[in-house]
Amino acid sequence: MDRLFEQISDDLERIRRERPLIHHITNMVVMNETANATLCLGALPVMAHAIEEVQEMVQVAGALVLNIGTLTNELVESMVVAGKRANDLGIPVVLDPVGAGATRMRTDAALCLMSEVKPDILRGNGAEISVLAGAGGQVRGVESISQASDLKQVASELAAARGCTVAITGRRDIVSDGKRTAVIENGHELLSRVTGTGCMATTSVAAFAAVEKDLFAAAVGGLVTIGIAGEKAAEVSGNGPGTFHVALYDSLAAVSKEDILRLAKVRLAD
Amino acid sequence: MDRLFEQISDDLERIRRERPLIHHITNMVVMNETANATLCLGALPVMAHAIEEVQEMVQVAGALVLNIGTLTNELVESMVVAGKRANDLGIPVVLDPVGAGATRMRTDAALCLMSEVKPDILRGNGAEISVLAGAGGQVRGVESISQASDLKQVASELAAARGCTVAITGRRDIVSDGKRTAVIENGHELLSRVTGTGCMATTSVAAFAAVEKDLFAAAVGGLVTIGIAGEKAAEVSGNGPGTFHVALYDSLAAVSKEDILRLAKVRLAD
Amino acid sequence: MDRLFEQISDDLERIRRERPLIHHITNMVVMNETANATLCLGALPVMAHAIEEVQEMVQVAGALVLNIGTLTNELVESMVVAGKRANDLGIPVVLDPVGAGATRMRTDAALCLMSEVKPDILRGNGAEISVLAGAGGQVRGVESISQASDLKQVASELAAARGCTVAITGRRDIVSDGKRTAVIENGHELLSRVTGTGCMATTSVAAFAAVEKDLFAAAVGGLVTIGIAGEKAAEVSGNGPGTFHVALYDSLAAVSKEDILRLAKVRLAD
Repeated sequence: MDRLFEQISDDLERIRRERPLIHHITNMVVMNETANATLCLGALPVMAHAIEEVQEMVQVAGALVLNIGTLTNELVESMVVAGKRANDLGIPVVLDPVGAGATRMRTDAALCLMSEVKPDILRGNGAEISVLAGAGGQVRGVESISQASDLKQVASELAAARGCTVAITGRRDIVSDGKRTAVIENGHELLSRVTGTGCMATTSVAAFAAVEKDLFAAAVGGLVTIGIAGEKAAEVSGNGPGTFHVALYDSLAAVSKEDILRLAKVRLAD
Repeated sequence: MDRLFEQISDDLERIRRERPLIHHITNMVVMNETANATLCLGALPVMAHAIEEVQEMVQVAGALVLNIGTLTNELVESMVVAGKRANDLGIPVVLDPVGAGATRMRTDAALCLMSEVKPDILRGNGAEISVLAGAGGQVRGVESISQASDLKQVASELAAARGCTVAITGRRDIVSDGKRTAVIENGHELLSRVTGTGCMATTSVAAFAAVEKDLFAAAVGGLVTIGIAGEKAAEVSGNGPGTFHVALYDSLAAVSKEDILRLAKVRLAD
Repeated sequence: MDRLFEQISDDLERIRRERPLIHHITNMVVMNETANATLCLGALPVMAHAIEEVQEMVQVAGALVLNIGTLTNELVESMVVAGKRANDLGIPVVLDPVGAGATRMRTDAALCLMSEVKPDILRGNGAEISVLAGAGGQVRGVESISQASDLKQVASELAAARGCTVAITGRRDIVSDGKRTAVIENGHELLSRVTGTGCMATTSVAAFAAVEKDLFAAAVGGLVTIGIAGEKAAEVSGNGPGTFHVALYDSLAAVSKEDILRLAKVRLAD
């Protein structure tokens, strides 16, 4: 585990040194917030969704985020075009299937993106991932209401079946690439009281994937980093979600190599 | 009046206990902010506007917000489809006619939504509502410049004519269902110095409407709650609109049953 | 220079007194943030992009902002229609060519807007403006990576060739109308760590242009004001970009006539 933590903390430094471009095709609710999270992590954000430019934009990116939070058919079409180009160039694609299970359109779009594009990492909440794995799960709006009981198994099997890394966030986060499965206990309850923190987790994972070839390590690194930032933000926020939201950016920008080595709470599952 | 305040404070607890889904088809300026306001109130937000999914999404919602702040023809079409479905299912619809009167397109869209959909509550500023009531009113951009002199009468007559509840926000807020008319004196001048606080008021009204069948009480409850939150936020903000904006979320999340009983300033008009 | 500072500080008071409407057709990332910056400056924001309403909206505006940060073909079409109407009515148009140089679509859109519309002021980073001037420059995503070495000359020649005022922001800001060229040393490094501060600079320039016929003075005034606000915000922010972002709104709202006279750092270039 120590080696994983060394790897993650090195990756964080690499993000800040290399400043990879993270191309987002994402929802309208969190565009500003995920752009700022990207900057806080040390990477550079770009939000661009016109089908005429996404191929050209993605080819200079370090990673591509596809997020269906406020999807339209046109937007999904742009995601497919950008995602295929990223696949061809070996640029990691992170898919956030926001609200999969809540409507047929969202489930279909997520499944379409998983088959037309080969996402390298899939990051969602327990119910969204359970739905995509065919393991049940209930989503109300974009919130997880109920989910498969054994998320470790869901993550592991879906990862193996799809040949990707699966990251599930919630009270505990789970990451699996089908062979290794990790449980992460970083984070804070206030993260669930601010909209878009799940999308920020996806962005954080993408920033790590831009500098780290081992996508299991990248997903763990991205979730540990946002989790630690959440813990540190909560320390200065009382119980106020507004204050916490602001402090989260400060904390993300301040997470250090030492913080990761000292505060990461990850264990490998059997 | 004491009974109304008991009712409102019970409703606030019900929002936090039942966590109704508030489906927004809203403008791009305030999507993040109204989603966060929804969470602070204790409800769950979803922003979804694709015509292919709005009917399916709204049927699990506790209330539907239609807000034309950055309207397009496609968006209004989605609003009509979602609004009709909500009407059929008895799910309350709250219409925010942002900028009605500023352009013909906005006035027409608001009037179209009022006839094609039957909004249960209409929430706007004095000029917007005056325009829709045919009582004059001047809007510059999305700001109220001049309005009918007697807004209580405008609200009451429009509510009676349309069979809905009308809520007008401004220095004083007015709520009427055509029979009862209330004047609310909660709020703070800083609310007018942050964009989207009117839209947050609409969201707050919608959250109350999701748990309260008496829509007059729901509208009063929503406006009293955001008004008290504004007062409490102003206490810690100096004169800074940025600080106030952040404190407003903290305050919204912290408004208690006791705050409402102690701080609500509502009187019934003759 | 003292006369310029008097002029700028008078303009700031005029913005607050006259409250001009600033019509934005802008990107989805910064809509809320630039609307709030507009309010903090004392002006009134409106975000409206439907082609059916932009002509009617712009005719009551004090200035028009065109920003291609999340462009689509439809949006550029609306910008052309609104921009031409503004030109006809003598309403100043400020163009922010976000990401010009990053993709052909963005470069083409910016050049199209510069020929179809006559922007009065062009505000971009060094690489974007260098690209549009045909002087090299490299953009990654929306960030300036490299640019023409002599930005003063680029600004001056482009301004003369296009008959407009050119404002380049960066470590030092440069403003030129082809005859006069100014170098501005206000600002703070934290401005580059929050997304949308360039767009806010454009908004600030537009607010000044709404009340000041001398567009060179308007551009200098807009950049000096946001720069001073950034300096004052940094004083209370530690090194946290989240806290800085919030403080920036407070500072923008608080910048005084005296602050400008005392803190403006502008020199005319040879």
